Amino acid sequence: MSSDHADIRPLEIAVSGQAGVDATLQFIGRIQTPFTDRSLCPRQGRPDGPECRIEIFPPWDQALQGIEDYPRIEVLYWLDRSRRDLVVQNPGHSDRTFGTFALRSPVRPNPIGTCMVDLVRVEGNVLVVRSLDCLDGTPLLDIKPDRCAFSPKAAPKPAG
Amino acid sequence: MSSDHADIRPLEIAVSGQAGVDATLQFIGRIQTPFTDRSLCPRQGRPDGPECRIEIFPPWDQALQGIEDYPRIEVLYWLDRSRRDLVVQNPGHSDRTFGTFALRSPVRPNPIGTCMVDLVRVEGNVLVVRSLDCLDGTPLLDIKPDRCAFSPKAAPKPAG
Repeated sequence: MSSDHADIRPLEIAVSGQAGVDATLQFIGRIQTPFTDRSLCPRQGRPDGPECRIEIFPPWDQALQGIEDYPRIEVLYWLDRSRRDLVVQNPGHSDRTFGTFALRSPVRPNPIGTCMVDLVRVEGNVLVVRSLDCLDGTPLLDIKPDRCAFSPKAAPKPAG
Repeated sequence: MSSDHADIRPLEIAVSGQAGVDATLQFIGRIQTPFTDRSLCPRQGRPDGPECRIEIFPPWDQALQGIEDYPRIEVLYWLDRSRRDLVVQNPGHSDRTFGTFALRSPVRPNPIGTCMVDLVRVEGNVLVVRSLDCLDGTPLLDIKPDRCAFSPKAAPKPAG
């Protein structure tokens, strides 16, 4: 957990102490977006936003089988440039604060971003998508089909 | 990564080798559900499902400030009983396989579950919710407001 409070805003609250290590993550790909600085990132991705590219590293490219059937997919990524120690934040630089769990800010105890995106096309081990809002170079954690599209994909239980 | 292939289904494909450690997670709470075995978990949470309790550990309970304004919240949790090494899965025990990224199965390279739930009430450091589908005792990673509800919460940028 960072102890650098230089960039903290008025009324924000940081917690001290080291974060525990309860589980580990592996980066399985990398996301390319036009957003090279946090100030350029949209607050939420838009369906008419720019095309972005999600590169999946081997051996996980094998796990893309069937992804092309989904027009909407959920992308999970690691917000690797975020501090992790704020419990209360001041997004508007005002006198109004919010708990971290009442915001979708990248600053969180476990900085995992989630975004539902439109799948434009698959190019080998690269997914071309729209509606992403993350920084260029963001590490990829997971891809899941859209919730609603899942159920029909599961094979029905055998009768009898 | 598990090398125990005893529970692998026909046509499933596991990848070998240890998973890298690129980032670490801390568990910030624990989820209580009536689902004590994977066979009892619903395939997707339902709005008319049972009430479940999300306990947030200190100091992260301070980050709940304002959460009560959201009828819908997103919950991220760690699927701590999942193997992580399958790239192709056979959910129907049939001849039809799917890449891991074309399924919402708990078996994934980074076993993070996401679920959009209805917030019923807040009891101190506990959120009572409906629509969860995870096992009892699942570790909590994060809570975020519903995507749609976020925008109005951000303070408008000052004019001029």
